[in-house]
Amino acid sequence: MGQPLYERVALIGTGLIGGSIARATKRGGLSGHVSGYAPSAEERARVRTIGFCDSVSDTLADAVQDADLVILCAPVGVLGEVAAQIGPHLKPGATVSDVGSVKMAVVRDVGPHVPAGVHFIPAHPIAGTENSGPDAGFAELFDGRWCVLTPVPGTDEQALKRYEHFWQGLGSTVEQMDARHHDLVLAITSHLPHLIAYNIVGTAADLETVTQMEVIKYSAGGFRDFTRIAASDPTMWRDIFLNNREAVLEILGRFSEDLAALQRAIRWGDGDALFTLFTRTRAIRRSIVAAGQDTAAVNFGRDGGTKPG
Amino acid sequence: MGQPLYERVALIGTGLIGGSIARATKRGGLSGHVSGYAPSAEERARVRTIGFCDSVSDTLADAVQDADLVILCAPVGVLGEVAAQIGPHLKPGATVSDVGSVKMAVVRDVGPHVPAGVHFIPAHPIAGTENSGPDAGFAELFDGRWCVLTPVPGTDEQALKRYEHFWQGLGSTVEQMDARHHDLVLAITSHLPHLIAYNIVGTAADLETVTQMEVIKYSAGGFRDFTRIAASDPTMWRDIFLNNREAVLEILGRFSEDLAALQRAIRWGDGDALFTLFTRTRAIRRSIVAAGQDTAAVNFGRDGGTKPG
Repeated sequence: MGQPLYERVALIGTGLIGGSIARATKRGGLSGHVSGYAPSAEERARVRTIGFCDSVSDTLADAVQDADLVILCAPVGVLGEVAAQIGPHLKPGATVSDVGSVKMAVVRDVGPHVPAGVHFIPAHPIAGTENSGPDAGFAELFDGRWCVLTPVPGTDEQALKRYEHFWQGLGSTVEQMDARHHDLVLAITSHLPHLIAYNIVGTAADLETVTQMEVIKYSAGGFRDFTRIAASDPTMWRDIFLNNREAVLEILGRFSEDLAALQRAIRWGDGDALFTLFTRTRAIRRSIVAAGQDTAAVNFGRDGGTKPG
Repeated sequence: MGQPLYERVALIGTGLIGGSIARATKRGGLSGHVSGYAPSAEERARVRTIGFCDSVSDTLADAVQDADLVILCAPVGVLGEVAAQIGPHLKPGATVSDVGSVKMAVVRDVGPHVPAGVHFIPAHPIAGTENSGPDAGFAELFDGRWCVLTPVPGTDEQALKRYEHFWQGLGSTVEQMDARHHDLVLAITSHLPHLIAYNIVGTAADLETVTQMEVIKYSAGGFRDFTRIAASDPTMWRDIFLNNREAVLEILGRFSEDLAALQRAIRWGDGDALFTLFTRTRAIRRSIVAAGQDTAAVNFGRDGGTKPG
């Protein structure tokens, strides 16, 4: 592997994403030392036991001390506060980044706390699972997934290149995007899907005419697909919706408009309209599988991939 | 296995469900002879090549001739017409069933064509994949899945028992339900999820501000989960929505009401309301996994199930 890209990497947050970065950094030999910080003593103890960080710090100041790369892996709602606390302790020439699912709010909240001489490069790896916490991470999480960087104007080219190489080393393909556009793209590819999934699961739980046991028993008819992402971390997702309000409301408006048209087609028995939509949507699935962003195995390979696909 | 349950079984339709019934009937030794019928010469040729039926008939009359059990495995929109055609050729004492995802419409459309002395037992196996056609079926499709029977009042007890055993032999657990209640349960566990999935994929395809390539590239953020069921058979799903209009519109009304409340919470920054919902929905996922209706593997086991779950 040669020289590590960053002598010392500090991860503020050691859950699914932080824990996966730690493991993938080791796998790729990308850093000589990975330090981790978690807000609770319980989580720090767990991280020490699992052992995916070289050191675990009890304070933010300690964690970022001497770090050449600091990545904030906490819910976006607390990033401003975290940045304010670590700002004075950052090493000149270091790079600060994050992994938040929204980027405009991160630029707004974190940017002002990054001192001159420290590079601030917001990032968002498009990868995850429905699990959270220090046990949820794994080194392969970013393999073949995209990582979007939304550098602010005037970002140092060399610092940017090095950070790109870091994410490539974690397994990702790196793309650059404007923060505003990122937030709009993610509103449709991630935030609206989660909102819809949370909503339908909530609707199902609240029905009086169908029992919860019936919903669970007969969920293989399609409903179960939605429950996976509706099991995602509540704090993380609350913060995403609070911090990408405009884009989510815009995309949600389009969704509701389209749904009203579908509702009308059902009410008036317009089979042609239904058939046309249902045919169009097949092509997108095929493109996603062809682009390597989902498995071609039937039923997501739930049955072990042994069935015809 | 002992005596087969039905000497001759006829499957009207040889796609995902018909083809899976044929294969599972063989596996279980449930019948001495399985005949299949498909409306197109091309599909009949394919079924003959694959060989999962003992005989393939070119006409409906031929297929049901001497059959002790006839299962209609065609989209619900054509079942009335099919029933009218086979009615005169049914063997006295035979059982006629179907596998449609709606049951009130099937009772309405098929019932009148079933002659006296023939038992009519509507059925719905809660199992499927996003694939269709004669190559899509497999013998294990019904293993561990529910099959709901919605017998009409006065159904012969012995015929009912035998048909229950047949589905148990295919791998299912059998449940009886009133047709109207079935249609409501399925509206929330299957029909609304499909409608929502079709809708969000359609919305994503129609955006001008986000390109289709971006939707595909960044689909791992959640969107891809919806594209699987949005790739389901368009004819089948058109017919389901046209034939379960009342229940789907009722459940859709609840969904839209809940979504409006969520939208309001986002607009007004009500983080507590979001957090409360997002926490509740986790429990349902856990119950579905505990009930054996979905895999516990992270990401549906897409990564081969080797990652921590």
